[in-house]
Amino acid sequence: MAEYVNVAVDAMGGDNAPAEIVKGAVEAVNADKRVKVFLVGKEPVIREELKAYSYDAEQLEVVHAEEVIETAEPPVMAIRRKKDSSIVKAMYMVKNGECDAFVSAGSTGAVLVGGQVIVGRIRGVERPPLAPLIPTEKGVSLLLDCGANVDARPSMLVQFAKMGSVYMESVMGVKNPRVGIVNIGAEEEKGNALVKETFPLLKNCPEINFIGSVEARDIPAGAADVIVCEAFVGNVILKMYEGVSSALLHQVKQGMMSTLRSKMGALLVKPALKTTLKSFDTSQYGGAPLLGLNGLVVKTHGSSKAVEVKNSILQCIAFKEEKINEKIKEQISLEDKAAENN
Amino acid sequence: MAEYVNVAVDAMGGDNAPAEIVKGAVEAVNADKRVKVFLVGKEPVIREELKAYSYDAEQLEVVHAEEVIETAEPPVMAIRRKKDSSIVKAMYMVKNGECDAFVSAGSTGAVLVGGQVIVGRIRGVERPPLAPLIPTEKGVSLLLDCGANVDARPSMLVQFAKMGSVYMESVMGVKNPRVGIVNIGAEEEKGNALVKETFPLLKNCPEINFIGSVEARDIPAGAADVIVCEAFVGNVILKMYEGVSSALLHQVKQGMMSTLRSKMGALLVKPALKTTLKSFDTSQYGGAPLLGLNGLVVKTHGSSKAVEVKNSILQCIAFKEEKINEKIKEQISLEDKAAENN
Repeated sequence: MAEYVNVAVDAMGGDNAPAEIVKGAVEAVNADKRVKVFLVGKEPVIREELKAYSYDAEQLEVVHAEEVIETAEPPVMAIRRKKDSSIVKAMYMVKNGECDAFVSAGSTGAVLVGGQVIVGRIRGVERPPLAPLIPTEKGVSLLLDCGANVDARPSMLVQFAKMGSVYMESVMGVKNPRVGIVNIGAEEEKGNALVKETFPLLKNCPEINFIGSVEARDIPAGAADVIVCEAFVGNVILKMYEGVSSALLHQVKQGMMSTLRSKMGALLVKPALKTTLKSFDTSQYGGAPLLGLNGLVVKTHGSSKAVEVKNSILQCIAFKEEKINEKIKEQISLEDKAAENN
Repeated sequence: MAEYVNVAVDAMGGDNAPAEIVKGAVEAVNADKRVKVFLVGKEPVIREELKAYSYDAEQLEVVHAEEVIETAEPPVMAIRRKKDSSIVKAMYMVKNGECDAFVSAGSTGAVLVGGQVIVGRIRGVERPPLAPLIPTEKGVSLLLDCGANVDARPSMLVQFAKMGSVYMESVMGVKNPRVGIVNIGAEEEKGNALVKETFPLLKNCPEINFIGSVEARDIPAGAADVIVCEAFVGNVILKMYEGVSSALLHQVKQGMMSTLRSKMGALLVKPALKTTLKSFDTSQYGGAPLLGLNGLVVKTHGSSKAVEVKNSILQCIAFKEEKINEKIKEQISLEDKAAENN
């Protein structure tokens, strides 16, 4: 028997749990023979959902967890107290080596805290960034950090750049990915204190392909493959994608409904529009990995449907097979060696 | 003779200078009897442009300035050295009281530096924020700071909130404007160090209507009338508006051109779409005021056409008649008094 990529999945997390999570898990194991899913959560509920599907029982196990961490709960407290929750139990399965990865659509805070506290960081990694793929006119870019690590230091941003480059090259197949730092102008002397201190460090980093500053305006056009910034700014970028898109599409719809003539036109353009606009939906790329942990933790949108859960699970295969964490360890230990030589 | 609102206009600034600037100035004086424009720049060139128009000569003067500050020039140096530039000369006209306001589509850096160095801050104002109006589904919001004041302190953000409230209430006619601080979650305990320190100060500020945190996602929907943040974040928000809109509209156009059916539909929806999408264009609201100066300085888009120049000039009338600066002075001196009482 070949060795599986073992993925623990939070069956209780997200707006559509457990139905869509269970469905996504089944679709993932049916799509790829290399993956085994451990559905963690309330066993009776999960079993009930599973009745509707056929799948190879060898590839899907249910692990009972009595408790559920709610999105509104303070994450640190929840992780500490709810030892029998799906998130905590699944995180320990990754820590203990039973699983290679964990996928959750549940509380972002709890996933971020649990990742650091339970799964733990790779030695030398200062902070594990949450790194979603964002749609661009050219394809996708990796934006990091979008997590809860606010007030980052320059050395952290350099690590984000290295880890992001490994991910884009090995998982997404982008050769020599272009790394940009989010700035308020293209010139080197522009920016806030953090950017000004980080810029020369990135410039002198031989392991990455640093192309300089990227203005927010140019991100949706695909100005860089790996976009580095501290988490507050990353969060604003990610949320502006959602906010501007949704407001604008709302306007487009209103415009189309405003006259009889435009209503007729709308009927004709609708199918074509739907296809192209789908490529600009931030949620379709499945999960955002939390990079730099001893194992893989993937956070998918709270509103994830089965297809995103499935994609998030399948994403774990490339992560393991491409030995992303070994490559990250290598990058980070190069840093240690450089420090020793100085 | 009634007293004019005297506005100095940088005839040489922006991508479409001098033609569109001169045209906009003429349109402004023809639209409103209360305004007098001083077109500052190379006199022969301006006179040549003016030949095409008719206007009340009483309302429009030309002031010669030999030099031009280019967008690419380092602003501090440019302001110091080019004493005979349109920007420096016009700024001195405001400082000396010859003019009430200055409008420029030229170098943002030079306008920001000149505003602080030449026109000067109102006593007690720590930093003058650049405050553009941004389109929302409900109308417009004022976003401040979008200037070059990176790494702001909490007390500065409180002043931004007060000055922004005065502007929205008195110039835009929004009663009791809702003030929000940009944050990465709605809860009070979320945010970076700056936001966490600023939040309680805003909460305890009786002069403003503070509604708490605003997530970037909710800005385009019109979640607050006055949106406070430090300049790096403000710049990212403003640029994401542009970037996401332009990428998305590009996708919409591509979608419409993708099939024969959709092409026919596109012809029908186009006129209606154009009208609604116009309301989501950040450039149409004319200029962004630089608040808190001894006079009004308005920066309009580098790509401004006559209509934006005209709107920027007319905006100065409300600013003067509503005595915005007197109101700002009052707000800031309340602060001094509060400090004395503590």
